[in-house]
Amino acid sequence: MKPRILVIHGPNLNLLGVRERELYGPSTLAEINQRLQELGAELGVEVDCVQSNSEGQIIDLIHEARLKADAVVINPGAYTHYSFAIRDAVAAASVTAVEVHMTNIAGREEWRRHSVIAPVCAGQIAGFGPLSYELGLRAAAELVRSQREPRGKGK
Amino acid sequence: MKPRILVIHGPNLNLLGVRERELYGPSTLAEINQRLQELGAELGVEVDCVQSNSEGQIIDLIHEARLKADAVVINPGAYTHYSFAIRDAVAAASVTAVEVHMTNIAGREEWRRHSVIAPVCAGQIAGFGPLSYELGLRAAAELVRSQREPRGKGK
Amino acid sequence: MKPRILVIHGPNLNLLGVRERELYGPSTLAEINQRLQELGAELGVEVDCVQSNSEGQIIDLIHEARLKADAVVINPGAYTHYSFAIRDAVAAASVTAVEVHMTNIAGREEWRRHSVIAPVCAGQIAGFGPLSYELGLRAAAELVRSQREPRGKGK
Amino acid sequence: MKPRILVIHGPNLNLLGVRERELYGPSTLAEINQRLQELGAELGVEVDCVQSNSEGQIIDLIHEARLKADAVVINPGAYTHYSFAIRDAVAAASVTAVEVHMTNIAGREEWRRHSVIAPVCAGQIAGFGPLSYELGLRAAAELVRSQREPRGKGK
Amino acid sequence: MKPRILVIHGPNLNLLGVRERELYGPSTLAEINQRLQELGAELGVEVDCVQSNSEGQIIDLIHEARLKADAVVINPGAYTHYSFAIRDAVAAASVTAVEVHMTNIAGREEWRRHSVIAPVCAGQIAGFGPLSYELGLRAAAELVRSQREPRGKGK
Amino acid sequence: MKPRILVIHGPNLNLLGVRERELYGPSTLAEINQRLQELGAELGVEVDCVQSNSEGQIIDLIHEARLKADAVVINPGAYTHYSFAIRDAVAAASVTAVEVHMTNIAGREEWRRHSVIAPVCAGQIAGFGPLSYELGLRAAAELVRSQREPRGKGK
Amino acid sequence: MKPRILVIHGPNLNLLGVRERELYGPSTLAEINQRLQELGAELGVEVDCVQSNSEGQIIDLIHEARLKADAVVINPGAYTHYSFAIRDAVAAASVTAVEVHMTNIAGREEWRRHSVIAPVCAGQIAGFGPLSYELGLRAAAELVRSQREPRGKGK
Amino acid sequence: MKPRILVIHGPNLNLLGVRERELYGPSTLAEINQRLQELGAELGVEVDCVQSNSEGQIIDLIHEARLKADAVVINPGAYTHYSFAIRDAVAAASVTAVEVHMTNIAGREEWRRHSVIAPVCAGQIAGFGPLSYELGLRAAAELVRSQREPRGKGK
Amino acid sequence: MKPRILVIHGPNLNLLGVRERELYGPSTLAEINQRLQELGAELGVEVDCVQSNSEGQIIDLIHEARLKADAVVINPGAYTHYSFAIRDAVAAASVTAVEVHMTNIAGREEWRRHSVIAPVCAGQIAGFGPLSYELGLRAAAELVRSQREPRGKGK
Amino acid sequence: MKPRILVIHGPNLNLLGVRERELYGPSTLAEINQRLQELGAELGVEVDCVQSNSEGQIIDLIHEARLKADAVVINPGAYTHYSFAIRDAVAAASVTAVEVHMTNIAGREEWRRHSVIAPVCAGQIAGFGPLSYELGLRAAAELVRSQREPRGKGK
Amino acid sequence: MKPRILVIHGPNLNLLGVRERELYGPSTLAEINQRLQELGAELGVEVDCVQSNSEGQIIDLIHEARLKADAVVINPGAYTHYSFAIRDAVAAASVTAVEVHMTNIAGREEWRRHSVIAPVCAGQIAGFGPLSYELGLRAAAELVRSQREPRGKGK
Amino acid sequence: MKPRILVIHGPNLNLLGVRERELYGPSTLAEINQRLQELGAELGVEVDCVQSNSEGQIIDLIHEARLKADAVVINPGAYTHYSFAIRDAVAAASVTAVEVHMTNIAGREEWRRHSVIAPVCAGQIAGFGPLSYELGLRAAAELVRSQREPRGKGK
Repeated sequence: MKPRILVIHGPNLNLLGVRERELYGPSTLAEINQRLQELGAELGVEVDCVQSNSEGQIIDLIHEARLKADAVVINPGAYTHYSFAIRDAVAAASVTAVEVHMTNIAGREEWRRHSVIAPVCAGQIAGFGPLSYELGLRAAAELVRSQREPRGKGK
Repeated sequence: MKPRILVIHGPNLNLLGVRERELYGPSTLAEINQRLQELGAELGVEVDCVQSNSEGQIIDLIHEARLKADAVVINPGAYTHYSFAIRDAVAAASVTAVEVHMTNIAGREEWRRHSVIAPVCAGQIAGFGPLSYELGLRAAAELVRSQREPRGKGK
Repeated sequence: MKPRILVIHGPNLNLLGVRERELYGPSTLAEINQRLQELGAELGVEVDCVQSNSEGQIIDLIHEARLKADAVVINPGAYTHYSFAIRDAVAAASVTAVEVHMTNIAGREEWRRHSVIAPVCAGQIAGFGPLSYELGLRAAAELVRSQREPRGKGK
Repeated sequence: MKPRILVIHGPNLNLLGVRERELYGPSTLAEINQRLQELGAELGVEVDCVQSNSEGQIIDLIHEARLKADAVVINPGAYTHYSFAIRDAVAAASVTAVEVHMTNIAGREEWRRHSVIAPVCAGQIAGFGPLSYELGLRAAAELVRSQREPRGKGK
Repeated sequence: MKPRILVIHGPNLNLLGVRERELYGPSTLAEINQRLQELGAELGVEVDCVQSNSEGQIIDLIHEARLKADAVVINPGAYTHYSFAIRDAVAAASVTAVEVHMTNIAGREEWRRHSVIAPVCAGQIAGFGPLSYELGLRAAAELVRSQREPRGKGK
Repeated sequence: MKPRILVIHGPNLNLLGVRERELYGPSTLAEINQRLQELGAELGVEVDCVQSNSEGQIIDLIHEARLKADAVVINPGAYTHYSFAIRDAVAAASVTAVEVHMTNIAGREEWRRHSVIAPVCAGQIAGFGPLSYELGLRAAAELVRSQREPRGKGK
Repeated sequence: MKPRILVIHGPNLNLLGVRERELYGPSTLAEINQRLQELGAELGVEVDCVQSNSEGQIIDLIHEARLKADAVVINPGAYTHYSFAIRDAVAAASVTAVEVHMTNIAGREEWRRHSVIAPVCAGQIAGFGPLSYELGLRAAAELVRSQREPRGKGK
Repeated sequence: MKPRILVIHGPNLNLLGVRERELYGPSTLAEINQRLQELGAELGVEVDCVQSNSEGQIIDLIHEARLKADAVVINPGAYTHYSFAIRDAVAAASVTAVEVHMTNIAGREEWRRHSVIAPVCAGQIAGFGPLSYELGLRAAAELVRSQREPRGKGK
Repeated sequence: MKPRILVIHGPNLNLLGVRERELYGPSTLAEINQRLQELGAELGVEVDCVQSNSEGQIIDLIHEARLKADAVVINPGAYTHYSFAIRDAVAAASVTAVEVHMTNIAGREEWRRHSVIAPVCAGQIAGFGPLSYELGLRAAAELVRSQREPRGKGK
Repeated sequence: MKPRILVIHGPNLNLLGVRERELYGPSTLAEINQRLQELGAELGVEVDCVQSNSEGQIIDLIHEARLKADAVVINPGAYTHYSFAIRDAVAAASVTAVEVHMTNIAGREEWRRHSVIAPVCAGQIAGFGPLSYELGLRAAAELVRSQREPRGKGK
Repeated sequence: MKPRILVIHGPNLNLLGVRERELYGPSTLAEINQRLQELGAELGVEVDCVQSNSEGQIIDLIHEARLKADAVVINPGAYTHYSFAIRDAVAAASVTAVEVHMTNIAGREEWRRHSVIAPVCAGQIAGFGPLSYELGLRAAAELVRSQREPRGKGK
Repeated sequence: MKPRILVIHGPNLNLLGVRERELYGPSTLAEINQRLQELGAELGVEVDCVQSNSEGQIIDLIHEARLKADAVVINPGAYTHYSFAIRDAVAAASVTAVEVHMTNIAGREEWRRHSVIAPVCAGQIAGFGPLSYELGLRAAAELVRSQREPRGKGK
């Protein structure tokens, strides 16, 4: 059976390509999801995409992913910077998680530079627009693949 | 002519695969460089790899990249956290830069969580072991490709 | 067509006039909304009022206001002090926003003095009880009016 | 009529006994609730238990408790550390509240040591696993009992 | 007798409309004062306007207002952020005070976001250009009116 | 043989019921100790109570408890907030320790909110007046009981 | 010739006994000055008293005291907490200075606890109402006396 | 009966006049106590003096003063800066307390500038060598006197 | 017509050469002004010098300089470190400003190291005694000269 | 006469070799003292060893050392991090002091990294288990020796 | 013999005039050095210029300057903000040092505002583009001159 | 074969005995190395000494020591306080490291009190001039010896 990877888009990402295009680029969320489906096919993984503005729903989604997915690619939007509840959800769920951001958060407002969720993820990718998601999907797919095969573990 | 991408390994990375394998994994720097050459060939970019423990030399390398390369993939090692001089070198040079880390720096010591260099890079990738470099190379290659073709710019 | 202004009451404001009257005064939310309707009629704007305890719903409301309203008057309650997600929603939506508070937050607990949302609003009004909403509605109506007529812009 | 006490389990506590058992112990939430029902019977109080991952729903529950319960025992999970909105809900509701935690939050990560909700509760109990809930129920029952009988108030 | 309201313009506001019009708008101080006179007439209050660059003079003015005015509308300019002496003057005087700012100080430099004077005022209005003064005058007039008539006090 | 639990009252607690009754309630230390003796009998544990204003003596007491008691219930008074020496004593002794406070320290002065001792205790109970001690004794008795019987350990 | 001591009352102290009597007591500034004159006569020193709300005037007064007085007793009011210019004036003038406060500033707002002027004074007296001035005058008189007679210097 | 005032000298003050005379002056503790006895006689109060290096003993002394003295003059030495236990003792005891220091602590090391005890004292006197004690005794005697006679209270 | 440069000496600088000569050197303000006149003649600029201890007057002077001078050389004395009002005056006036200090403020007290005014000046010169003024005058003259001639702008 | 060196063991060190051997090693305090006696004989110095859990007693011991010893080797245990009273005792006593720690405090908890006592000691040795004491004794003996013979002083 | 002044250009300054001309102006390093040679001739000092990106080399250069130069003009580039090693080199060398910056570092990023090197220099000049170097050379030449002639020293 | 110990002297230590003798004493680096050679012979270890001002070279030296030495004694000079790169080099190399300082860094400037390297060393010795090196060599030799013989490990 093909590995399953859940892509979670956090708050306000439903507006991608519609508003603030100078900041987040012209791609809509649908286009990004379409591209991830194609890349998933290429990488041999099944990709599900979902968006929510609600912290509680995102926690529910991560809990479900514990049973239904092998890895999560998550862009927690602004929740990145204060949602210890999402952090705990990621820590409590057994799926591998990759945090992605479209913008280079290290170069924006002070409060956007720190992620409370990243410490419990496998890693973080930020700054490449829609490409951040694609790289995140590649990373997740590779992490799932390497967990299935015995290999020396790099932290 | 193929785009050129310079991969700069910062301080202590010459010991990769030799020491602290529980932290950084079993791959040696040579193996990583070998894999990057292969991936570069696949992506149609020329890849040069260099390692230095010296802050001044790393600055010199970035200055040279300004003339000789289209993008830089850089793992600044511990300089990540205090070398404003390397930051200024990246800012002063016109090549696109991608910062990579093998470990998930967000989950390690407090001082390792902040990069003074990332704000002037295009983006940052951390936590995936040798795969971080490969993702960084993909990001750099894509950024170079998209700059050559006209396209809407995502920050 | 008359301009539309959406008034969003954040968490715990449904208890207005019922609890903590020594702090927030005797007016119920219904009475405040009634007064805002009357003032809206006087000012020539249509006023809609809504209350929610959920951060995610408030974000949804702001997204909808982007299409359905000309301005938002928002009292984000305690979300004022940490909801970067609501801030991003305001920034991403194109409606003018005015932040209001019934109490003088500058004179209360330390954490209540800082708003993470105000920087992306047009302005902030605090400390006048139900009157804060009325002043906020006046401000929003005037901002909408002045945007429709060409005029020198004051930041 | 018997006093009623509402037990609110915050985010991620639905996973109790399923995940991270080394941290939170082997008891499931159902087992804990069962034990609280039994203890409630012993103490002569009616006990209702509810779990939610949503900040907004938890606020709604506290508002309802204002009318339907005499006291609340609440484990706000990670919301403990940043949800000023839940804090305001507790302050606005007239029920006595007792904050409980299964782990000794004083000995965990820095950010877990501070509760923004505890200042408006009667008290806090942390570190005793499922026993924390039982002690919290005892405290709540005693506080309700002593409020019904005239007595000198100890802060 | 009509209530009297003193409007105090702090340091550098004499340059309004002359310099930094991109920040503060095209209105001169004389035009603003003219508009406040008109609005005062409309609201049934007498309005006096005064400007000073001197901290000591502003303190003197507030002391005088204690005897000669029913409320003060004050834009303390940069003194907002450090003049504890003006704060003490407001606290020592018995007139109601409303702090106003033309710009949205929450969205400007870090040091401009905190007012040491606001905690002893009735409230604060910021961000609406000359309209801030008009809203401040309305607030002051309403506060004076409601103090003359018995009413439940909202903090 | 019955388990022994040592209750240590720290500085100024000898004045309980004598001074500051509005803060700490009307019970004297003797009454509290009496109540703990009774509860100990009920729980099948032997209870010893001791009070000291001296940091050094409290350290000595904890050292002795290492040999003579199965658990310690300790209210370190103001030493809670700075006595790293008592913390080290608790860490060095092998008895289980439960920290208790009569008042809700989370809701008092800033410096009273942080305990340097709690991180090396099993848990903390605060805010319930004399009941805090009773709950602490219950917790200690239960911890001793569960350590004697094999069981899954909850942190 | 008798030593001369200048007493400088800072901002808002002209309102003593008129406003905020619950905080500063019922004595007017005139009464305090009268009492200081009497005490000066008793101690054999000439006393001059002056009040100003202006930072610049207070600096001028200190400069003059350099030539005309042997010591200064100063209550800098709110300037205590931020006027580095007054501090520099005291440091530049050669008269001995004693800082006095009527209230116990250590027990009031956080910002009132720190004096930027005290480090360059001989000492500080706070908390005793009008008595603070009398103690300050005694201290100043004694410091002047001991400087005229040779003696071991206590810092 | 004459009022009684207890003078408590904290840690290291037994070395006064013996060591660090450049800092604390040439007077020995015995000479200071002698002078205080004389001044007490002059002021009509009975003076007891005691010195201790032990925090616990100082707490005991303050507890005793609650019954045996009308006021306390205390130089807590270095305990000034961290002994919240002594602070609580002062707060719990009903005697008026005056904090004194021989040196101008505002002008010494950063950590010496803040007193955790002063907020619960009537006031603080610092910087005048042995004279600090004399002024403190005068203040204490006056506070005792004014409490015996009805008078407006100045904070 | 010759360019005019206004030299503003801030608080306490009237005492130059009279007091604290070990810190500020032996030159009086008159001597410094004399030297600046001579240097102005040499550089072809007209030089006016003024001193004030008053923050409000300094603001007035800067406002006047807006109309009457081409550049300002300002030593704001201690106002350097907190007068946001002077900062705003410099920002609001259109003259070029150069901040000078006689001492090397980077090597003195912590609070003296930060200038709130420098960010809105062209540059800062510190540490060279009277020579600081001369260098500042040279800088101002050169800046005026280069603004009159078209040239590439260096920030 | 042989120089005398007093070794002071602070709080909890009486448990050495008994508890926490994984942290402090297997040596008991008696064994360490025995070894120091032997080394003292070898170095020609007389060694006295004492342990106390009481801050006050440690101060007393340092005062006595002033008269009876030539140097002090002190391991202040947890008092290292907050006992300004012990610091003042060391500063007031004329013996040379060497601070020692068995563990590498720089690598442990944040609060353990800072010593408030070390600044007034000659130096600090940490991290070598019982060897830390031996090196400390060597340092103290050498410092005593070099003070007896004229030599260039190295700070 | 003519005094010698060494001008040290730190990291990235070799790119002057080539990159970031909007920030640093159009002058190349060669042009700046040429201008400094000319000004040196005018001032009667010999000028040597050197650039290095290496912290270690800059330290070596300063050590050499100790023997071969009378003063150093140094632009430490980004090392300004963290190289305590260069600071120690300046402190250890006996040449007078003047720190210069082309941009107004007080008005740029937060981290650029603080120099760790300036406290051990004679002074600092910032914000005037290439003119900063010229003013720095003038300052250095004057400092050398005044050290050769006896004169009152201004700090 | 005799154990080998590498002594690394960091930046500016080549100037020992030449400059700042009041701070670092009269010994030259050559004399210290000579003394270490003698002590090494006495202790039965081979000692190599090297000095470098370059961070990169020091990293290279530590890497080499990994293969060629059994322990390192390192005085990192000012790099102590910020070179995370040297810290990583020590952590990555398998030799035991002892950090030494000639001066008592705990008693100097704030920034000199914290070592970023010490946490990964075995221990730290500071304050004893050249003797610090000798004690460091003894510590290193003993650590090497005890690692060769089986023994209980003290952290």
